[in-house]
Amino acid sequence: MNTAPLEGIRILDLSRLTPGAYATLLAADLGADVVKVEQPVTGDYLRTLVPAGFSYLCRNKRSVTIDLKSGSGKDVFYKLCESADVILESFRPGVCARLGLDYETVSHINPRLIVCSLSGFGQTGPYRNKSGHDLNYLGVAGALSLMGEPSGPPAHSTGIAVADFNASMFTVLSIVAAVLARERTGRGQYVDVSMTDCMASWMGRYLAERVSDESRTREAMMSRPGYDVYQCSDGTYVTLGCVEDVFWQNLISTLPVGHELQNFRSPDSRDANREKIEELLANLIAQESRDHWLDVFKASDVPAAPVNMFEEMLGDPQLRARALFIENPDEPGAPYQRFPVVFSDVSSREPVRAPELGAHTDEVLREAGFEQSVIDELRKEGAV
Amino acid sequence: MNTAPLEGIRILDLSRLTPGAYATLLAADLGADVVKVEQPVTGDYLRTLVPAGFSYLCRNKRSVTIDLKSGSGKDVFYKLCESADVILESFRPGVCARLGLDYETVSHINPRLIVCSLSGFGQTGPYRNKSGHDLNYLGVAGALSLMGEPSGPPAHSTGIAVADFNASMFTVLSIVAAVLARERTGRGQYVDVSMTDCMASWMGRYLAERVSDESRTREAMMSRPGYDVYQCSDGTYVTLGCVEDVFWQNLISTLPVGHELQNFRSPDSRDANREKIEELLANLIAQESRDHWLDVFKASDVPAAPVNMFEEMLGDPQLRARALFIENPDEPGAPYQRFPVVFSDVSSREPVRAPELGAHTDEVLREAGFEQSVIDELRKEGAV
Repeated sequence: MNTAPLEGIRILDLSRLTPGAYATLLAADLGADVVKVEQPVTGDYLRTLVPAGFSYLCRNKRSVTIDLKSGSGKDVFYKLCESADVILESFRPGVCARLGLDYETVSHINPRLIVCSLSGFGQTGPYRNKSGHDLNYLGVAGALSLMGEPSGPPAHSTGIAVADFNASMFTVLSIVAAVLARERTGRGQYVDVSMTDCMASWMGRYLAERVSDESRTREAMMSRPGYDVYQCSDGTYVTLGCVEDVFWQNLISTLPVGHELQNFRSPDSRDANREKIEELLANLIAQESRDHWLDVFKASDVPAAPVNMFEEMLGDPQLRARALFIENPDEPGAPYQRFPVVFSDVSSREPVRAPELGAHTDEVLREAGFEQSVIDELRKEGAV
Repeated sequence: MNTAPLEGIRILDLSRLTPGAYATLLAADLGADVVKVEQPVTGDYLRTLVPAGFSYLCRNKRSVTIDLKSGSGKDVFYKLCESADVILESFRPGVCARLGLDYETVSHINPRLIVCSLSGFGQTGPYRNKSGHDLNYLGVAGALSLMGEPSGPPAHSTGIAVADFNASMFTVLSIVAAVLARERTGRGQYVDVSMTDCMASWMGRYLAERVSDESRTREAMMSRPGYDVYQCSDGTYVTLGCVEDVFWQNLISTLPVGHELQNFRSPDSRDANREKIEELLANLIAQESRDHWLDVFKASDVPAAPVNMFEEMLGDPQLRARALFIENPDEPGAPYQRFPVVFSDVSSREPVRAPELGAHTDEVLREAGFEQSVIDELRKEGAV
């Protein structure tokens, strides 16, 4: 029998927007019972801000509404804490304490609870109460140093919220790690995820590289001849990933005899002539179609691959062969995706649509021991 | 007593370069005993390609050399499998099978072993044997659709290897999840990490957003007025992260009476006048220093933060208050970093320098039951 790693683990997810939602999507795929706890009437802002994003990120979760500011709402939440394993919250630091939902309070109810706070700058330090979004965290963490144009200004906007998604990854990793630790210690703990700290962690290797070698300027670290995106004659794009010299030699070997790029075969001449090489490569690749180049480069073991623009990825033969996509009844053009890693001993769950706001309030409260008449009463007073 | 989640878990790390090394650095910080298994004489390429990167990524690990192509080297490795919990490998698909190190073989030696293969495109599918690097995976996964200049070509190089680091995150998450599953099932399993699949997983939310709303063009998804990087009068940069309207209103409220930006207070006029607004904002922010703007924006709760360029991050008051940095005796200017998430019940390990190639061969082999005379013999024949 296959067993999902988080089978039997219930997560009360108080978080809003993408970082928490992607973390608990992955947790749900690993077998957790994810219960979104949302404000009555309004719910998670993501529902209205990016409805399709909500539908994508919140499949296989349940939704209960609880007014955490009301006394009876709080009591309902405390009752749910008794049978929960994890609470995830992404309020600004201090809000949980004001609501009476801080770790000290809930761990008295259930010492096995793991409480994870996900915030932009962490629960401590001078920036802790600052508002912020992905781009702000990327800047503080030094990550914008290595984004944008190599020779342009030091920083640009980015479409992919790298700090958000990286924080999701550290959040789900830390939750699973705390569950594993609890198997041994029998007790829960408090987990403080700062999106900025998580992003800074990726930068350590680059900072070490730069500090140890003066020639590693920003431009040198961001641009390597033969490692870039090139447009083909059909208007599509191809990537080349020639890092190691062996791949550069393979690339040179595909060229017609006497081609000017052959003057830059040695590592030294390659390093010293970046701009010239990039110009020659761009001109060369612009002369033929992407299919042509992918065939040529595959035959000579040059790291080359297509650039899939949005929907194109759905037709990519590799992603299709990997059965990455799962039908999404709500958005046929934007399928769900399976958990991206394939485990030999974990079977995947059937996808279930993202829940309507509060769709599982009655079900979850009944599971926690509330009588239906009490639930009806709570609903009347607006507590759930 | 604090307990690290991976206490007592031994990982034999056959991987090379950054993606595997960062994954096992995080695993080591979570308490694992990480043993790098390296080719005698040459070792992990990262040692010579980026020595400072190796030093940063391989602290708190041990190094043994084993020639996995030799019969006696293979026998040594099989012996180590008896007491190991996890094997991580990043060879091209098929190489482990040729070496006799595939899951079927090693799981017969130790059915509790978790074997994780980390590759660019995964163990199956038409691209499985293609060479590749970060940029190639970003392209196939659709991620380059949302990188680069909003109005420029669809794709650019990036300095931060996002696909590499994201794959590290999924690798360590999957290893910890498989260890947790083993606590229940008593058996190991095989884990297939495709860097491309992992990256594609981040794209699902954006694809859903785009497919469901025709107005969400690439440019619209990448550029939002008041969400960008701006240069200050002192030459430094500041980020603004005004996503929600409340933050845009806060920003407008900081402006002098009659400032032209006040014409764009409503959400509709904000959306419709991106270029004009960006020009006005850039001109405004260029008139004062970064410290000035950070004070102004903090007082009105506008999401704003400094852009730290490389070494600048070391002086950032928030990162310092969070005690993110740990002294690195080898590179004083490029400190180590603690595991970026703070656990209340896991104490951090003392940092230990990255090992010299094979520094722990004798120690690890003796732990596995080899007599010193046998180890000396193996060394003479070049097997270790």
